Amino acid sequence: MKREIKEACGVFGIYDLDGNSVSNTIYYALLSLQHRGQESCGIAVSNTNLDEKNIKCYKDMGLVSQVFNKEILKKLEGNLGIGHVRYSTTGESIKENAQPLALNYIKGTLAVAHNGNLINTKILKENLQKNGAIFHTTIDSEVIAYYIAKERVRSDSIEAAISKTMKIIKGAYSLIISSPQKLIGVRDPHGFKPLCLGKKDNSYILSSETCTLDTIGATFIRNVEPGEIITISKDGIESNKENVISESRRGRCIFEYIYFAREDSYIDNISVYKARFKAGEFLAEDSYVDADLVVGVPNSGNIGAKGYAKRSNIPFTEAFVKNSYIGRTFIKPEQSERTIAVKIKLNVLKEVVKDKRIILIDDSIVRGTTIKEIINLLKEAGAKEIHIRISSPPFICPCYFGIDVPKKDELITFNHDKEAIRKIIGSDSLEYLKVERLPQIVDGLKICNGCFTGKYPIRIK
Amino acid sequence: MKREIKEACGVFGIYDLDGNSVSNTIYYALLSLQHRGQESCGIAVSNTNLDEKNIKCYKDMGLVSQVFNKEILKKLEGNLGIGHVRYSTTGESIKENAQPLALNYIKGTLAVAHNGNLINTKILKENLQKNGAIFHTTIDSEVIAYYIAKERVRSDSIEAAISKTMKIIKGAYSLIISSPQKLIGVRDPHGFKPLCLGKKDNSYILSSETCTLDTIGATFIRNVEPGEIITISKDGIESNKENVISESRRGRCIFEYIYFAREDSYIDNISVYKARFKAGEFLAEDSYVDADLVVGVPNSGNIGAKGYAKRSNIPFTEAFVKNSYIGRTFIKPEQSERTIAVKIKLNVLKEVVKDKRIILIDDSIVRGTTIKEIINLLKEAGAKEIHIRISSPPFICPCYFGIDVPKKDELITFNHDKEAIRKIIGSDSLEYLKVERLPQIVDGLKICNGCFTGKYPIRIK
Amino acid sequence: MKREIKEACGVFGIYDLDGNSVSNTIYYALLSLQHRGQESCGIAVSNTNLDEKNIKCYKDMGLVSQVFNKEILKKLEGNLGIGHVRYSTTGESIKENAQPLALNYIKGTLAVAHNGNLINTKILKENLQKNGAIFHTTIDSEVIAYYIAKERVRSDSIEAAISKTMKIIKGAYSLIISSPQKLIGVRDPHGFKPLCLGKKDNSYILSSETCTLDTIGATFIRNVEPGEIITISKDGIESNKENVISESRRGRCIFEYIYFAREDSYIDNISVYKARFKAGEFLAEDSYVDADLVVGVPNSGNIGAKGYAKRSNIPFTEAFVKNSYIGRTFIKPEQSERTIAVKIKLNVLKEVVKDKRIILIDDSIVRGTTIKEIINLLKEAGAKEIHIRISSPPFICPCYFGIDVPKKDELITFNHDKEAIRKIIGSDSLEYLKVERLPQIVDGLKICNGCFTGKYPIRIK
Amino acid sequence: MKREIKEACGVFGIYDLDGNSVSNTIYYALLSLQHRGQESCGIAVSNTNLDEKNIKCYKDMGLVSQVFNKEILKKLEGNLGIGHVRYSTTGESIKENAQPLALNYIKGTLAVAHNGNLINTKILKENLQKNGAIFHTTIDSEVIAYYIAKERVRSDSIEAAISKTMKIIKGAYSLIISSPQKLIGVRDPHGFKPLCLGKKDNSYILSSETCTLDTIGATFIRNVEPGEIITISKDGIESNKENVISESRRGRCIFEYIYFAREDSYIDNISVYKARFKAGEFLAEDSYVDADLVVGVPNSGNIGAKGYAKRSNIPFTEAFVKNSYIGRTFIKPEQSERTIAVKIKLNVLKEVVKDKRIILIDDSIVRGTTIKEIINLLKEAGAKEIHIRISSPPFICPCYFGIDVPKKDELITFNHDKEAIRKIIGSDSLEYLKVERLPQIVDGLKICNGCFTGKYPIRIK
Repeated sequence: MKREIKEACGVFGIYDLDGNSVSNTIYYALLSLQHRGQESCGIAVSNTNLDEKNIKCYKDMGLVSQVFNKEILKKLEGNLGIGHVRYSTTGESIKENAQPLALNYIKGTLAVAHNGNLINTKILKENLQKNGAIFHTTIDSEVIAYYIAKERVRSDSIEAAISKTMKIIKGAYSLIISSPQKLIGVRDPHGFKPLCLGKKDNSYILSSETCTLDTIGATFIRNVEPGEIITISKDGIESNKENVISESRRGRCIFEYIYFAREDSYIDNISVYKARFKAGEFLAEDSYVDADLVVGVPNSGNIGAKGYAKRSNIPFTEAFVKNSYIGRTFIKPEQSERTIAVKIKLNVLKEVVKDKRIILIDDSIVRGTTIKEIINLLKEAGAKEIHIRISSPPFICPCYFGIDVPKKDELITFNHDKEAIRKIIGSDSLEYLKVERLPQIVDGLKICNGCFTGKYPIRIK
Repeated sequence: MKREIKEACGVFGIYDLDGNSVSNTIYYALLSLQHRGQESCGIAVSNTNLDEKNIKCYKDMGLVSQVFNKEILKKLEGNLGIGHVRYSTTGESIKENAQPLALNYIKGTLAVAHNGNLINTKILKENLQKNGAIFHTTIDSEVIAYYIAKERVRSDSIEAAISKTMKIIKGAYSLIISSPQKLIGVRDPHGFKPLCLGKKDNSYILSSETCTLDTIGATFIRNVEPGEIITISKDGIESNKENVISESRRGRCIFEYIYFAREDSYIDNISVYKARFKAGEFLAEDSYVDADLVVGVPNSGNIGAKGYAKRSNIPFTEAFVKNSYIGRTFIKPEQSERTIAVKIKLNVLKEVVKDKRIILIDDSIVRGTTIKEIINLLKEAGAKEIHIRISSPPFICPCYFGIDVPKKDELITFNHDKEAIRKIIGSDSLEYLKVERLPQIVDGLKICNGCFTGKYPIRIK
Repeated sequence: MKREIKEACGVFGIYDLDGNSVSNTIYYALLSLQHRGQESCGIAVSNTNLDEKNIKCYKDMGLVSQVFNKEILKKLEGNLGIGHVRYSTTGESIKENAQPLALNYIKGTLAVAHNGNLINTKILKENLQKNGAIFHTTIDSEVIAYYIAKERVRSDSIEAAISKTMKIIKGAYSLIISSPQKLIGVRDPHGFKPLCLGKKDNSYILSSETCTLDTIGATFIRNVEPGEIITISKDGIESNKENVISESRRGRCIFEYIYFAREDSYIDNISVYKARFKAGEFLAEDSYVDADLVVGVPNSGNIGAKGYAKRSNIPFTEAFVKNSYIGRTFIKPEQSERTIAVKIKLNVLKEVVKDKRIILIDDSIVRGTTIKEIINLLKEAGAKEIHIRISSPPFICPCYFGIDVPKKDELITFNHDKEAIRKIIGSDSLEYLKVERLPQIVDGLKICNGCFTGKYPIRIK
Repeated sequence: MKREIKEACGVFGIYDLDGNSVSNTIYYALLSLQHRGQESCGIAVSNTNLDEKNIKCYKDMGLVSQVFNKEILKKLEGNLGIGHVRYSTTGESIKENAQPLALNYIKGTLAVAHNGNLINTKILKENLQKNGAIFHTTIDSEVIAYYIAKERVRSDSIEAAISKTMKIIKGAYSLIISSPQKLIGVRDPHGFKPLCLGKKDNSYILSSETCTLDTIGATFIRNVEPGEIITISKDGIESNKENVISESRRGRCIFEYIYFAREDSYIDNISVYKARFKAGEFLAEDSYVDADLVVGVPNSGNIGAKGYAKRSNIPFTEAFVKNSYIGRTFIKPEQSERTIAVKIKLNVLKEVVKDKRIILIDDSIVRGTTIKEIINLLKEAGAKEIHIRISSPPFICPCYFGIDVPKKDELITFNHDKEAIRKIIGSDSLEYLKVERLPQIVDGLKICNGCFTGKYPIRIK
């Protein structure tokens, strides 16, 4: 149902060494990353074959399919380009904060797209302002760009400037940068945010998720390593690993696997689908209950439900019909028509759930209002028992690295114990995935699960 | 995937005897009927409490959520109203042909919403023109309205005029009509198109499908009987059954069950979900093949796939991820980017299908291009075998009653035998539901299956 | 300034005998008639060379330049077409009432554009409804079309049907009609509304005003005579004068000369510019006052002011600057910012008016609020005396023939005598054009000046 | 007619010391400055009463009445604000280059609106980039803002930083700047661009032109002196004159008087209306010709024509009707319909010009195409003789200070002598205002007339 936890961004970059225009490909790539940010989006392109390095950039509030049209894409000619979809975490939700940032600096043009969140922005910004800097936006990305430009003055290469900048900025960042003749990918040393490399014909591609490679018909080459700077130029791929740290200190965001990434993506070689399926299996193992059907909250709980079904040997089915014509411009029902609000979007297949004992799976529980309404719909349709299983642990701590979890007082898991929540939402039972299962769903990969534990890979002052 | 066969219309009407405004309810009801027509839509309302009977009508090309906004709905005040969603079958796809028709005639106002197709329009229209009639539209509904107005001059009641009109017009029609103090539902004697009656508080409701009743929180009362005229006025419900014929001569459109209606609707008391599930079961019974997984073409084949899975004991799963951010304004890829076109909308879960023998279910096969592309995607993702099972028989004849099947030369089933089609689409096997199974999926209800057999309930000259 | 009295409509028709598309020409023609109606507009075209006579019609609320764009015009291919601009007098201001009406009747297609107002619509409509007619709109034009269609059944030609219809309908009408192979112009016997004939290359043209002919580069041939039916077909021009009455009974609307028509038009061979200029001259003759400057209210009073200046030998000048960037979407100032409202649109040239005695001319006085504000502006800018001269008599009666004068209680001239008005608006003197001068400004042409006298050419029940 | 020479910008600022919201006033002010730039516009506001100094800024491509609506203005709450209308001279015509610039710097917020053009931008920009600066736009204004921010770090006040910046930047600039608690106006030492100070209630106002003060009902206080920095804070007005130079070295743009400014404005106390009127008078004196009428090209030549008429004693009249409904979205006629293009916008009053010898005045001649078309129209309408008088000298040199004169090869005056031009445009005679008359039309004020002479107040490398 409605996504209550929000991701910062999705980033994409492409360099066509044969000189073909890349704006259409960026458009389709951004469509495949739209789930990572629905607030604003943008594309910046340049042409490596021209002497004058001009960046053409277009960005606005809205979905990719709303912001761009044929004429706009036509004007964005160029063989080197980057794209961005955004949901605001730092910086307000205004046009000026849309990305990519397209800039001029000492070496010509610079475009920057950023996914993640720094934790030392304030001090960095003050340092720059003390030297006369002016800021057009309130986003971290401008601070990063400034440091790169500043370091570039006394560095031999853009990569050297980026490498120095990485020693200064702290936090989560996957960056895609285009400079006059190069496409550059950067991933923070802890590897919070995903970034992968692909190829199609004679184009190199960087993207937040592998599902983009499938969409545009590209081949996956490898993941950008946490701490790595990867450069694509007409001379091919180069890698700078100065800032790489040991695997033991890394902390990939577990929430990408549980919630954000698209299920057909692989993040650091782990299938998102499989991680969610396993979470369902572990739930079945740890919190079995006898029932007639396993059902997922559409669409977030479906994969977990299939895992639970498989391990428990209780049949999986779909119990809901979603109205696919609602759209964004849809007029929300008044408060007094609150029950209509859910039913417009979702109807229960009575045929399926009547007189049945149901295990209902969702991937997380935030405010508890959605699950409560769905439980209600099932009851109205004649379900006999409803057992809730959540394929992640309860949220108890904030995220400092780019995930917008609601404030503590809006988090039902922060204020109530399990039994209290069960009563509020009206289910017959309620269980969560255990925290110790988290590493297991990603085959033991080093993760950050701070939002469930309060323990983060970087110290937060 | 893309709907290649198109329905004419969805109709809705409501009369709030307590005098409350109904425009918001009509809006939500039309959203629940949007699958029946996405070309244009409209709402016409009047106020039974005012002396001057004025119809306010607003209609335009586009989806319900695009055409209407808060201000427009606010202007549509009234306690008696009807609504319509349309895909053009007769009449061109132009603004003028949008429905409802809002008219003035001898007794004041008349609004008409129509689902279906007449087969004697031409002669009816000529008869009217010989008496000086002028037509503003090219749709059947105007002809019907004209006859009702004409008969009304020499009839005691609007119902009598409608009843006389029913003896003249031939074909499929579910009509909802509002006259100054009445809401009237009419269903043709053969019962081609669905129409049901519901109630919410002190409002009576008529709708093409029962899913609308769920959406707006109303209770199902009963279906309008084929041939019946049902009148809702401040004196309650009245029924005129002059034109009712015997059940044996009826012919409900089987395609409503197979394809058009929403799976959570019940048409003439038969669950659409169950009909599709049974079609899958019969397919498994009649055309079993050994495999690892049963998969549906999203979303049209999913229910049939579950039926097949249950009967065959081969596990059902979902194998595709749909991009839910594509939208209508999305820029279609050029011909040269044809492969991208499918992949933008759909990606395969490699994790699920790799090295598997797959039974792929869809509800129909029209041009064969979509299923071919999906088979391709599965093969690319590593599926070992792909067996196609279609939960309806092959199309071999036109529909004269309001379903827009492509022309014969575009129908792959018309030009090719099963083996030829199998080769074209590239599957390992291909089987259809048998024609004799059709009555069984609707518990023996009298149906029209003319598009599969060439035999229609009414003689076509 | 703001037009407070509103005209019904402007009409245009063109038949290109060489078969070229006429939609662009209609577009430019409608732009030249936009002053006659700014509420809605439309174009209907057909192709005389095709067997199937299909009318393509597009109309919507808004200005010509807002409603039409290149794509829409491209779809309106055809060599025979009519156009309409509308301000509603009868019929509400809704999309359905936009014109032209495009209809099908016994002989194929029929498109109708109408300027004027009937006075026996009610009874005509009842007669039709008693025979089963249905009405889609609330405009007179549909009634006229219905009668033509009805009479056509028993007439040998469309002209015969129109001629019979003219004997039935009463009031003001200039009609342009396209039937499958003909373009037809009709003017009511009294000649209330203008209509002229022109030619360009091998195209014949009908238009409300001659300024259209200048705009599209056509040559004026002659006016359509009051009561005449003029037919343009591939055989050339034919004329039917069955309904022509004697000149003595005619009554051209004097307000076309004073106010509505564009100053570069000639109506029934009388120059609108000259009529207004003369009105100014007569004012000077009848109501001279000594002063330093003659100034017009922009732009409505400028021509009268020049006439006054010439006769009085007091120099004419412009004293105002208009802001030409305000536009329709401009946010109106709140009530509290009322003084800003005028000043945004108009500023006085202090340089010009300071310490001057000014004669200020306008063409009419309706509510009196505009002139009051302008007098204020002049006073603030230092004008010493302000003498108002209005180049038409005071309104005292309603118009039944298509001019939308405000209701009596909004007309300052109805409620107050001259001295009272002078005090309200704050001028030093106030005089009107004398009623007896009206025929003189149009060289003695027979006119209707009912709004100033209460005497109309047709009896009003 | 169409403006062929384009101005850079209009600027406006207001500080309401009583704390009232100023966004509506800025909106109306920008409407009054719209003639100075129609490409993009923007408003930036802040609230001096809040602790956190946040600038809210909204800007986009388009006219003021298109870019802003009620909701947007509502969101722009604040008692200190600046506004800008723009036509691009430096920097491309893209959204990013719209003004005001809203920035964060060491002391909080900074908004900048700029009218004019620097001549040493390139070197200034390089100096900044060498220190690590990044640029988001390609406009001069960002360079100015950067220098102010940089100097602010080591200055005691924003005024000191601005004063130091003024010593570095070279060229034409009228700046309006808002810093957290101040509204600041700056005019370059040469005084190229206008800037004036006004007051309304307890609000201080800065604007490019005095017509804005009339529009919003404010009182003119004085002009900002060339070289002055004027500061409005809660302590009142302060003035810094460190950069003021002697009057003899100043160079007000003469083109503001001839062409750009609105005729109801006073620039440096000289009436724009009067300057244009005098130009006409001098033309009559220097280039008299016997004729029947003096006519202006609408609307640019009308004031000059009145001056000519007065001095020559030949009557002034208007000879054209402009269609006021054309609008921006109007579909331009194809090349083949070229004659229509003029006639749609303009028609001649034949009544007025037939058989007359006409003196036609315009304020400038650029490509010569417009005047040629107008001469043609007059001839077609029967004018006997047409004598062209231009109330400015011929362009022969570029402007470096913010006026966008077409390229030399598009300037008819650059390529042809007077007689050649006369033949091309088809007039009976042609004369220009003499260069030596220029200072006389502005009462001897020190001006820059470089575009007519090649002599500029600042040396151009």
